[in-house]
Amino acid sequence: MARPNPVQLIVKKRDGGALAPGQIRALIEGFMGGDIPDYQMSAWLMAAFLRGLDEGETVALTEAMLRSGKTLRLASVQAPKVDKHSTGGVGDKASLCLAPLVAACGVAVPMISGRGLGHTGGTLDKLEAIPGYQVRIDARRFERIVAEVGCSIIGQTQQLAPADRRVYALRDVTGTVESIPLIVASILSKKLATRLDGLVLDVKCGSGAFMKDLASARALARLLVRVGRGAGQRVAGLITDMRAPLGCTIGNALETAEAIEVLRGGGPQDVRELVLELGVLMLKLAGVHKRAGAARSQLSRALRSGAAAERFARMVAAHGGDCRVVDDVTRLPRARQRVPVPALRSGLVRSVDAFELGLVSVALGAGRVRADQPVDPAVGIVLAKKPGEHVARAEPLAWLHCRSVASARVQLGPARRAFEIGRRRSKPEPLVLDTIEE
Amino acid sequence: MARPNPVQLIVKKRDGGALAPGQIRALIEGFMGGDIPDYQMSAWLMAAFLRGLDEGETVALTEAMLRSGKTLRLASVQAPKVDKHSTGGVGDKASLCLAPLVAACGVAVPMISGRGLGHTGGTLDKLEAIPGYQVRIDARRFERIVAEVGCSIIGQTQQLAPADRRVYALRDVTGTVESIPLIVASILSKKLATRLDGLVLDVKCGSGAFMKDLASARALARLLVRVGRGAGQRVAGLITDMRAPLGCTIGNALETAEAIEVLRGGGPQDVRELVLELGVLMLKLAGVHKRAGAARSQLSRALRSGAAAERFARMVAAHGGDCRVVDDVTRLPRARQRVPVPALRSGLVRSVDAFELGLVSVALGAGRVRADQPVDPAVGIVLAKKPGEHVARAEPLAWLHCRSVASARVQLGPARRAFEIGRRRSKPEPLVLDTIEE
Repeated sequence: MARPNPVQLIVKKRDGGALAPGQIRALIEGFMGGDIPDYQMSAWLMAAFLRGLDEGETVALTEAMLRSGKTLRLASVQAPKVDKHSTGGVGDKASLCLAPLVAACGVAVPMISGRGLGHTGGTLDKLEAIPGYQVRIDARRFERIVAEVGCSIIGQTQQLAPADRRVYALRDVTGTVESIPLIVASILSKKLATRLDGLVLDVKCGSGAFMKDLASARALARLLVRVGRGAGQRVAGLITDMRAPLGCTIGNALETAEAIEVLRGGGPQDVRELVLELGVLMLKLAGVHKRAGAARSQLSRALRSGAAAERFARMVAAHGGDCRVVDDVTRLPRARQRVPVPALRSGLVRSVDAFELGLVSVALGAGRVRADQPVDPAVGIVLAKKPGEHVARAEPLAWLHCRSVASARVQLGPARRAFEIGRRRSKPEPLVLDTIEE
Repeated sequence: MARPNPVQLIVKKRDGGALAPGQIRALIEGFMGGDIPDYQMSAWLMAAFLRGLDEGETVALTEAMLRSGKTLRLASVQAPKVDKHSTGGVGDKASLCLAPLVAACGVAVPMISGRGLGHTGGTLDKLEAIPGYQVRIDARRFERIVAEVGCSIIGQTQQLAPADRRVYALRDVTGTVESIPLIVASILSKKLATRLDGLVLDVKCGSGAFMKDLASARALARLLVRVGRGAGQRVAGLITDMRAPLGCTIGNALETAEAIEVLRGGGPQDVRELVLELGVLMLKLAGVHKRAGAARSQLSRALRSGAAAERFARMVAAHGGDCRVVDDVTRLPRARQRVPVPALRSGLVRSVDAFELGLVSVALGAGRVRADQPVDPAVGIVLAKKPGEHVARAEPLAWLHCRSVASARVQLGPARRAFEIGRRRSKPEPLVLDTIEE
């Protein structure tokens, strides 16, 4: 077959047509092979952004980006393999808990995670708060750790879905990031590169999430599930609340410490609940349980018994990290200063804005605005009050963990404004807003 | 003012916003200065293609591209200066007639023309059919010829509106050519670089034109007039029929010979009529006549008296060309072979498809598919029948002027299919479909 002319592929999408799978493949292959320059790809991406991609095109794009690199078969891993992907939020430390917890229940979790960007945090940054933890290891060591420990969390490698990395870099500088089908293809092409038995998605919804309302979160979740299935992957997902930060901590070492609390059977109720709900879906997709109740019981036992925490310690050790943090979180980096954010009035905390606190956390140094910036593992925010709680005047709403009092002081106003205080309690919303199963 | 982030400019257009004039200027200046790479410009162009540009944005884009280069003041030219621009058609030799004709009526015509591409012909290719004619001369010689002869027709120079050239080259390979506001800004930025007292537009409409229907031709014509005015240029325009080829010839030397016939007071009625109608607008815009009747009389006299032909001969000589062609068109290149296109049935010619014959002409070698291809000045098509005329079975509909009988033979079918023959005469349509004045 003659290679299609790139201009024809652009014009077809520009005019609202649907490209055939072979045309999508030719586009990605041409782009990776150098026949299609950046300026043609970016014109196509803008046309795709504005005209949309249908499900078939999104499946084809996912598969073409997946095929641009290697796949990880993990042949030596005997257990069923399941991964989880979150669309990103504030204070979301669920991955750190889930990987060892689900591994402790007999399911392998070969997890490839990302870094924080903008107001959202990233699992790799949180793990790197543990002294010595290496997120960049080669594929053989990754496979060995998954086979021996049951779980491993690493960063994206150069070999997996390189087309996604190049396409994403171009989207980032051409205003074509916020497209549901392009996001779906990007997420799935990376996840499908590890041959999984199941993939569980946590689609966040609310101010702290990419999807601000339930309708768009549902659209993303449903397309993820359908396209995943179209590409031969079993996928299930939850839509979860991300109006307020998850748990009581924002910032890398602070969140890792909170994740360890959860793994030891404690921790904040919302984090624990999210971990159990996602864990149930993972065990069900892996075929370990058919019923949610049984799965939930096994997961709760693994938290209570210490099995999950022990699994986490083994994973940290296998990655070169200091596994003593599991018994002593004071071994994690700690900020020099703590500055309270006092309430200006008494009342009931009606809401806590995750997006605003995410930005405060970035400003304190816990996150980054550009992908190449370093983060400070020690700094962040500890919430003293969660939605529904009472606060007295001058009582701390939160504590800013910071390098200097001066750096925290300019954030006091923004941090305080994230807390809405009123007379009446706002109606509590459930954590899980919807479940999308196959 | 801080330079706007290119991504913000892309996102604003992507989301349907209107860029401020300063933002459009920053976009073009950034692109020309190297701060905005091709891939960001092409994403913006696709967003502009799909979201449109409003009148203010189109004026700003025109002015920004105009300011990217030099302007030609032509200070030594005393007469009012008027130019004409056609949106491109088949068999359109009006420019070759108009420049000397209007100059013979006391108005200077500093005309910057283009080459043929696809099914449409170009004035420069037609002029180059005259032995010795130089279309590439420097700005000083151009000015001297306009001052002394009253008209000069040259090609686009590197100095005038270089941003338009770079933007167009990018549009050509990114599927963003067919956008009315982008076309308007491209046309006007080039034309405004010569400081004119008036610009007359010939917006073609029909199968042989870029605009296939009257509504889109009107939209283009009106935006050209409004944006021209917004940029301080007096503009008027005609919408003219381009369903059938203009005149009886298609191909460079053939069309130049036909233009000379018109300049000598003869030639086909439709070409003559178009030249007079456009000439009237040019003389009115120049302020030479207020009434169309008086302008038309002066133009007709200049054709009858030989003044227009004499002016053409002087222009050709000033460009180094063989001006004897004006008295002896056999000095123009002639094709070796002539192959008739016989009618398969008798009847009345109901229509002649300009687009189809334009493609046949390209196939014979008279035109080009890519901008860097050479053309054969000698080859082309001579129509033996025009719409409304009777044809007998086996009588020629047209003659293909070609390098070899073999090259013509494969074009016989396509050429014949361009002629629709029926029993009844189709209703004749006027040549001028609409007039758009200020």
